[in-house]
Amino acid sequence: MTTETETTPRDHEGWLARARAAAAELAADAAERDRAGGAPFAEVEVLRRAGLLTLLIPAERGGGGATWRTAYQVTREIAAADGGIGQLLGYHYLLSWNLHFFGEEKLRERVEPRAAGERWLWGGAFNPRDPDLTLTPKDGGFELNGTKTFATGARVGDRLAVGAAHAHTGEPLVVIVDPRHEGVHRPDDWDNIGQRLSASGSVSFSAVPVPEEDVIGSLADPSPWTTLVTPAIQLVFVQFYIGIAEGALAAARDYTRTTTRPWLFSGVDRAVDDPYVLAVYGDLLARVRAARALADQAVEEIEQALHAPDREALTERRRGELAVLIATAKVAATEASLSVSSRIFEVTGARSTRAALALDRFWRNARTHTLHDPVSYKKREVGTHFLTGEFPEFSLYT
Amino acid sequence: MTTETETTPRDHEGWLARARAAAAELAADAAERDRAGGAPFAEVEVLRRAGLLTLLIPAERGGGGATWRTAYQVTREIAAADGGIGQLLGYHYLLSWNLHFFGEEKLRERVEPRAAGERWLWGGAFNPRDPDLTLTPKDGGFELNGTKTFATGARVGDRLAVGAAHAHTGEPLVVIVDPRHEGVHRPDDWDNIGQRLSASGSVSFSAVPVPEEDVIGSLADPSPWTTLVTPAIQLVFVQFYIGIAEGALAAARDYTRTTTRPWLFSGVDRAVDDPYVLAVYGDLLARVRAARALADQAVEEIEQALHAPDREALTERRRGELAVLIATAKVAATEASLSVSSRIFEVTGARSTRAALALDRFWRNARTHTLHDPVSYKKREVGTHFLTGEFPEFSLYT
Amino acid sequence: MTTETETTPRDHEGWLARARAAAAELAADAAERDRAGGAPFAEVEVLRRAGLLTLLIPAERGGGGATWRTAYQVTREIAAADGGIGQLLGYHYLLSWNLHFFGEEKLRERVEPRAAGERWLWGGAFNPRDPDLTLTPKDGGFELNGTKTFATGARVGDRLAVGAAHAHTGEPLVVIVDPRHEGVHRPDDWDNIGQRLSASGSVSFSAVPVPEEDVIGSLADPSPWTTLVTPAIQLVFVQFYIGIAEGALAAARDYTRTTTRPWLFSGVDRAVDDPYVLAVYGDLLARVRAARALADQAVEEIEQALHAPDREALTERRRGELAVLIATAKVAATEASLSVSSRIFEVTGARSTRAALALDRFWRNARTHTLHDPVSYKKREVGTHFLTGEFPEFSLYT
Amino acid sequence: MTTETETTPRDHEGWLARARAAAAELAADAAERDRAGGAPFAEVEVLRRAGLLTLLIPAERGGGGATWRTAYQVTREIAAADGGIGQLLGYHYLLSWNLHFFGEEKLRERVEPRAAGERWLWGGAFNPRDPDLTLTPKDGGFELNGTKTFATGARVGDRLAVGAAHAHTGEPLVVIVDPRHEGVHRPDDWDNIGQRLSASGSVSFSAVPVPEEDVIGSLADPSPWTTLVTPAIQLVFVQFYIGIAEGALAAARDYTRTTTRPWLFSGVDRAVDDPYVLAVYGDLLARVRAARALADQAVEEIEQALHAPDREALTERRRGELAVLIATAKVAATEASLSVSSRIFEVTGARSTRAALALDRFWRNARTHTLHDPVSYKKREVGTHFLTGEFPEFSLYT
Repeated sequence: MTTETETTPRDHEGWLARARAAAAELAADAAERDRAGGAPFAEVEVLRRAGLLTLLIPAERGGGGATWRTAYQVTREIAAADGGIGQLLGYHYLLSWNLHFFGEEKLRERVEPRAAGERWLWGGAFNPRDPDLTLTPKDGGFELNGTKTFATGARVGDRLAVGAAHAHTGEPLVVIVDPRHEGVHRPDDWDNIGQRLSASGSVSFSAVPVPEEDVIGSLADPSPWTTLVTPAIQLVFVQFYIGIAEGALAAARDYTRTTTRPWLFSGVDRAVDDPYVLAVYGDLLARVRAARALADQAVEEIEQALHAPDREALTERRRGELAVLIATAKVAATEASLSVSSRIFEVTGARSTRAALALDRFWRNARTHTLHDPVSYKKREVGTHFLTGEFPEFSLYT
Repeated sequence: MTTETETTPRDHEGWLARARAAAAELAADAAERDRAGGAPFAEVEVLRRAGLLTLLIPAERGGGGATWRTAYQVTREIAAADGGIGQLLGYHYLLSWNLHFFGEEKLRERVEPRAAGERWLWGGAFNPRDPDLTLTPKDGGFELNGTKTFATGARVGDRLAVGAAHAHTGEPLVVIVDPRHEGVHRPDDWDNIGQRLSASGSVSFSAVPVPEEDVIGSLADPSPWTTLVTPAIQLVFVQFYIGIAEGALAAARDYTRTTTRPWLFSGVDRAVDDPYVLAVYGDLLARVRAARALADQAVEEIEQALHAPDREALTERRRGELAVLIATAKVAATEASLSVSSRIFEVTGARSTRAALALDRFWRNARTHTLHDPVSYKKREVGTHFLTGEFPEFSLYT
Repeated sequence: MTTETETTPRDHEGWLARARAAAAELAADAAERDRAGGAPFAEVEVLRRAGLLTLLIPAERGGGGATWRTAYQVTREIAAADGGIGQLLGYHYLLSWNLHFFGEEKLRERVEPRAAGERWLWGGAFNPRDPDLTLTPKDGGFELNGTKTFATGARVGDRLAVGAAHAHTGEPLVVIVDPRHEGVHRPDDWDNIGQRLSASGSVSFSAVPVPEEDVIGSLADPSPWTTLVTPAIQLVFVQFYIGIAEGALAAARDYTRTTTRPWLFSGVDRAVDDPYVLAVYGDLLARVRAARALADQAVEEIEQALHAPDREALTERRRGELAVLIATAKVAATEASLSVSSRIFEVTGARSTRAALALDRFWRNARTHTLHDPVSYKKREVGTHFLTGEFPEFSLYT
Repeated sequence: MTTETETTPRDHEGWLARARAAAAELAADAAERDRAGGAPFAEVEVLRRAGLLTLLIPAERGGGGATWRTAYQVTREIAAADGGIGQLLGYHYLLSWNLHFFGEEKLRERVEPRAAGERWLWGGAFNPRDPDLTLTPKDGGFELNGTKTFATGARVGDRLAVGAAHAHTGEPLVVIVDPRHEGVHRPDDWDNIGQRLSASGSVSFSAVPVPEEDVIGSLADPSPWTTLVTPAIQLVFVQFYIGIAEGALAAARDYTRTTTRPWLFSGVDRAVDDPYVLAVYGDLLARVRAARALADQAVEEIEQALHAPDREALTERRRGELAVLIATAKVAATEASLSVSSRIFEVTGARSTRAALALDRFWRNARTHTLHDPVSYKKREVGTHFLTGEFPEFSLYT
């Protein structure tokens, strides 16, 4: 275990070094933790101690002062070690930015210093496919009721960002909830084949008071900038898909180098000299690198938009272009992560299927989250824009 | 649980009905059993009660009197329900036929009635990549020593077919071992990501006496017919790969029909009306059906060879053709089973990743056993024959 | 050039030998003929002299007396040499069977002996995507008007089978047209990237008289047996797709064996020893063999239906099963033919791109006809049946 | 035809605009020119008039003053219109830089102003798989003899960059040859299935005098910087592969939008609303964009190396990293260009196979040049580095 990290990295490279150290710590027992599943409190501590949770908060408010470029890259590094924790961290960054997408500066002034000081992890409750949570006006604030599934991070979050509908007007609002409130129920019910440490189970709210000041804002009348929330989280997905693929290749490489025996009829003494092994690695690497390069372009472009001084200047067209670019990267990353995580076994061999190695976790991780929304529909979005010039309409999927 | 089955099916279709009933019983709790892993004693009882273990033994010796066509098809049916048990059963059939490949009629006269009467399950110990087991002459028979891994069925077998080298001459022999002998150690050490119920862990032998009469025969001077042992087992693999793929499609279909929700932007009310869902099913089905058709051809052809009245009439050329045909089917079945078992999730959706469903077991099963020998080298075998006319030399892989 | 063939083959194998001889003749200059394009009169003569045109006509009417199994296989053999001529021949068989699908025995009694005696080639005019041809009652018969594109064989046919709508009632009729009639215009306008010798251009009819006796029948009230016309022609497609793929592999093999140089860094002296070359051949062969095996199953099954003594006994369910089976085979054959015909170049190398070799014709052939109807919709048909049990409704595509 | 272009673009974007205008001119009749084949003198004039030939020559020597980033991007733009001309132009840039890789500044001082003033197109003669050309000392210079195939641009070049071995020492030299010399034979013998306008036929030299001053330099003792010649040309390939893929998608889009009819069973009125059409476009676009993004990264990185002030500072490690990165991009671009150019027909439909459209030229172009060196060996290079850290040794392929 690393000891408390005291200094803040000065630049992107510094953060990456920090992330890699945390990733190495997580990688060491990733197979065991994958098997155990459960709520990743210990893993969150690793991220917290490494300072990664507050990376996106401005330095003057006590945070790391880094930008989304760094947040995205850090997400990828962590995901290479543990896909579920990568998801948890990436969602955390996005959830923390609800303050930006929907909130006002004075809210951030109040909340961010505290989030930095207490090193909050954000969890969320937004799944649009469940019935709406409701916010009923009460005592000058609201009362929150209802249940959401696939609530990544809710189980272990210090604060939750929650989407809910105003009980009378139906207006979609985003609020902050302190999960320690009575009435917040966070069962340990995430037990899926992959992303097992992503704490993506359900959360329910029973008469939970939400003071007026904890209302971040409304999605009722979104601007192009506001609606970046969806491409921004979709790019989080892309990052951890690529992280998973890179993690798979790295784990496979270690195994092939150290453990895989040359095939009986290969005529070589080491598996690393087998022509088929070499070519399969080359093939898989090319898939991941191409998807990653596209993701990198998307990161550079959304970085400009997310940190633009004038948020209102973002046009619908530009928002649309970013959404399509990121959708394209998602298609590429989906296919790369699935293909690579399944095919690594071709180059590690029969004995690498021991359950203790859990080399299948990369495929299980990729397989699980790439179903968040169907890749066929992402392809349709991309194709529609290419053919007709139309951009996808804003939704929490597009 | 079915009660003891009393009558013997009269024909192929009867056996398939019997197999499907056993498969339905195994399918009912396949996910739970997959999670539990361990030695499949209860599952073997299901096969035994259904009469499937003695299917290949001549009726006049108390067996089912069926042929390999039926054994292969039954293997596929069982594998669709539980890939590991399909493997166990398919290996059993092949192992039981060591009496034919390497033994003489008088041995079969003695052993088969007993195998039928006691409804033996055969386990094996042959992995050529481990150091040879040794048979040291002693007291007119031998003493067996050594360890084998990937010994499918050894943990639960009533008798083991074992390949071992004569300690003095190096001659490769096949012998029968009763695992209840002191000195036979069958740890419960199969804990791999897939084929979890195939009982494919290790077995070790420490000074285990093997009487002369339990020597089945020798591989030292194999005839074309004898060397059918390898294509015959490779076709067993093909059968359970296809069974796994068909099981995956069937499980996915159930889920899509009953549980998958139509996608938000699909414009349809039922997932089964989504154009992408439909086309993906069509695509996957075409892959499995094509591979299966090739396997069916291979079954018909090897059936002729295995049950030919004159075993010595089999030419090297014909043995080679069968080996290449089966290698070709193995390439096709490998790719179909991996692709289908990974892609079913596209048509079942995000919620189908619940661990309790274990819908990932099909991919884990396919992934695990398709590494038995590298598919690149099977492709090479097939390509070599096509290009040069050369047949693969006999080995326990080719 | 072969001389006139005098004797009729006695069995399936005899016909295949005959087909292979004709195929060898066609293969000898297939590249040159592909380049030249145009109307394949000379090629039709090769088929005619070999007796292949009358193969399906009963022996007692002067034909070859073979069945569809043989017709399908012969189509495949010819397509391996020249995809376009394979198409022409396969369509011919199907078109000649309009007499069976829609006509009565007394019509066949009259027409088949003449077709056999004069060794007719049938061309067609059916494309459902063009406006209907019209049959206007006149002088006790009809007058035919209109234009059809993609009219395979029309340019070179001795008789045309033509689908047209009754001008007053709209009833869809099938008629025989002698193309030597004034008013039949068969421009030499087939100039497409592939299947260049399939004579698939347009045909137009201007006041062409069609006597009552040349009306084969009506599609107005089709029975399950009648509607076999569509699966039967779709299986013709499958056969020549597989023929094209096999032709591609055979041509590639010749080239690799005789001409391809080993790669600089391969460490081998002959291209046929290169590990990648071998594995690619194995991979491609497995794809073709699997698709072919499925096609073979479909041939066996439709053979039973097409030659059943009691045509009215065919149920809708059985017709539906055949249609789905053949649709499945079409998906597999489409993918195999495209993949194989594009990838053969990997194993023949840079110099094999000389235009004079026209090794690209296999891909151009596969690419051209596999667009006849979209493969996505075939996948949808297959998937729909698998998911819901529904069979495709009868159309000229399903 | 555009008139002579008088002003030089000021920046990268200006050059791209210029390139796009030339590309539009070439695209207008690309299908006809593809069919005609032959030596692309007229096409070279289009490039020349647009100023593209001298783009890489420093402004102070009369050239365009642009850098490789621009040259690579311009190559891609031209290749989207005509793959063969894209190849010709990309090779031209690389061949012109033999002056940099192997020559000294004083040579460039003398040659570049003239190349700029006369707007030379460079052709080449380097194919390492042919026997060496020989340079025999004579009259203070050399006499050049021998033949090379695959000599891109030789047929139409104003000057040739030629690799030849010193007849006595075997030293590999690079020289400039003026092809108007007697003894230079440039037959019009490039007639291949794709890249038909790339002028990639043979060139032979019979006692061609090469004065001492036209010796550019030697490959005998290459430095890391010198050996960038191979990654630099391999990245040229990548650029025109991606250009071909993008050209294919653009041509398909035009056709789908304007001409493709909705499928009979699609339930939509326009092909651009068909769900399968949309998803296929999305799928293909994702492949191209991912490969392109990786190529873009490679361009940025080699740009730094090629234009570094201190050429001797380039380490072997850095050269190796660039070579591997570009090899990775080549694998990705190879697969994207082949897959996309074959699959566009799925979304344009049956009628798009008219020969006059030549929509197959994109596949023929990709197919032809991607065989330059086997993609399996590129995968092996990439995999070797990933597994072992080894860099490929310098050769004209690696």
